[in-house]
Amino acid sequence: MYDMIIIGSGPAGLAAAIYAARAELGFVVIEQSSVSGGQVLQTYEVDNYPGIPGVSGHDLSERMRAHCDKLGVRFINEEVRTVIKQDDIFRVTTWEKNVYEARTVIAATGASHSTLDVPGEEAFAGMGVSYCATCDGAFFKDGTCAVVGGGDVAVEDAIYLSKLCRKVYLIHRRDQFRAAGTLVSEAQRKDNIEFVTNTVVRSIQGGSKVEKLEIENKETGQISELPCDGVFIAVGIRPASGLFTELAVTNEGGYLIAGETCETTCRGLYAAGDVRAKQLRQIITAAADGANAVTSALKIL
Amino acid sequence: MYDMIIIGSGPAGLAAAIYAARAELGFVVIEQSSVSGGQVLQTYEVDNYPGIPGVSGHDLSERMRAHCDKLGVRFINEEVRTVIKQDDIFRVTTWEKNVYEARTVIAATGASHSTLDVPGEEAFAGMGVSYCATCDGAFFKDGTCAVVGGGDVAVEDAIYLSKLCRKVYLIHRRDQFRAAGTLVSEAQRKDNIEFVTNTVVRSIQGGSKVEKLEIENKETGQISELPCDGVFIAVGIRPASGLFTELAVTNEGGYLIAGETCETTCRGLYAAGDVRAKQLRQIITAAADGANAVTSALKIL
Repeated sequence: MYDMIIIGSGPAGLAAAIYAARAELGFVVIEQSSVSGGQVLQTYEVDNYPGIPGVSGHDLSERMRAHCDKLGVRFINEEVRTVIKQDDIFRVTTWEKNVYEARTVIAATGASHSTLDVPGEEAFAGMGVSYCATCDGAFFKDGTCAVVGGGDVAVEDAIYLSKLCRKVYLIHRRDQFRAAGTLVSEAQRKDNIEFVTNTVVRSIQGGSKVEKLEIENKETGQISELPCDGVFIAVGIRPASGLFTELAVTNEGGYLIAGETCETTCRGLYAAGDVRAKQLRQIITAAADGANAVTSALKIL
Repeated sequence: MYDMIIIGSGPAGLAAAIYAARAELGFVVIEQSSVSGGQVLQTYEVDNYPGIPGVSGHDLSERMRAHCDKLGVRFINEEVRTVIKQDDIFRVTTWEKNVYEARTVIAATGASHSTLDVPGEEAFAGMGVSYCATCDGAFFKDGTCAVVGGGDVAVEDAIYLSKLCRKVYLIHRRDQFRAAGTLVSEAQRKDNIEFVTNTVVRSIQGGSKVEKLEIENKETGQISELPCDGVFIAVGIRPASGLFTELAVTNEGGYLIAGETCETTCRGLYAAGDVRAKQLRQIITAAADGANAVTSALKIL
């Protein structure tokens, strides 16, 4: 019986492990991948984690993992299948058929970005293809970028990038936007944002990095090329909250509802990092969640 | 006229500067001290900032400052005297008689810990004298510690340390505690917490680090020695919110009221770091605040 089980080993899970280790809790981290880091691993360069400028996602993850190893954190490389709660005890069962029990659980399972599933998208990930304007926008200063999507995040990304880039194309498969009208109006007022509607991306092309998109107008069927330095894909995020939806309340986007203390509606279950409903999903905010989640758990342990 | 003025250069202010720089805002950081870092500078060793294990507070501050310098952040070494808001513009006046104007302000002015003001307290700061059990408790594993204070934080610190240390003395000048009754009961149930009430610390003594306290029983007048490896002083925190109390609402502790988005009750004014009302005041949570505050400000810029 553990005090705590941390599920996931991105920045939220690793930060939680650091705080749990320093509080001398009996705990374990269960990670699905054999390499810690989560989404950060797919990031070419991270330049907004204060104190560690210009680091690759891989290296930053390794540093956080090494920090945990130094503190003697135990990692189990298994995939969680179910989490149930009975008599105030959480029972975590993995696909490897092992069962772990604990008095508290930190859900640090993260999220994944929906993809376009077009040729070039995977090959150019981190080489011009990005899923986070706040994270990577600065790398395209004074360049030309495309944003793909029609929701709030896509339009916000286009506005954000319009302040950095010479030119921003906002590509959307429909002519109506799901995004808030005020956001769309704001984007329309920007001289350097060009709306490319009723249009889908067929492929992403380039040499060592992105150079152009092949796009198709769905009304006319016309196929053309759009030169750009970067493409930001904002077609949705899927929080990995499936394990916890029977235990705690999620919002319409599937995120676990919890304030900055990370306390979910289920006593003893804490949501940390990208799986939690919140304003800003960044490495630094995920790490802060890990610290907050452990602090909240200590109150009931 | 700036987009943003960041007041303070601890982790919250420096993180805000990193995010503001990457968003290409026109902004400046006004710092009172000629050395960035805030309270972190007084920390002997930081071992809970994920990714940078076992670093001195001075070095961690330098790394965050270097991160800002790399991004071209402009720092002004002046002390802010007043912040007023007129026609949606903030006017920041310094004791050096300069006036700076901006559309948004990030209050990252931090907090300071109240001190006992006894001999040895300053000399042994970071060498056995600490103001944060969550930060430094792990350095005293299996040792003997004293906590000084009678509020929630003091009793919480004693409980936290009781899990790490062989023995914890809870020293309080009265026999009644301001702390919540449930907390006091919990502390009383711990075998290794000993209550030392009606007692004040007269001095902190040792060689290269803390070795003992000289204490005085206020009822009997008896003076005695209490051997210990560390002393945690939890007699209150003073948030540096004075500049903003005319602009935004503070709570009974003087902290600026703002949720994790850092939006205060004054539009355009954001509270980041220890000056904000929140659960956990740590370097990592302060840095997350900086990121959140800039993200919130971008919505109105």
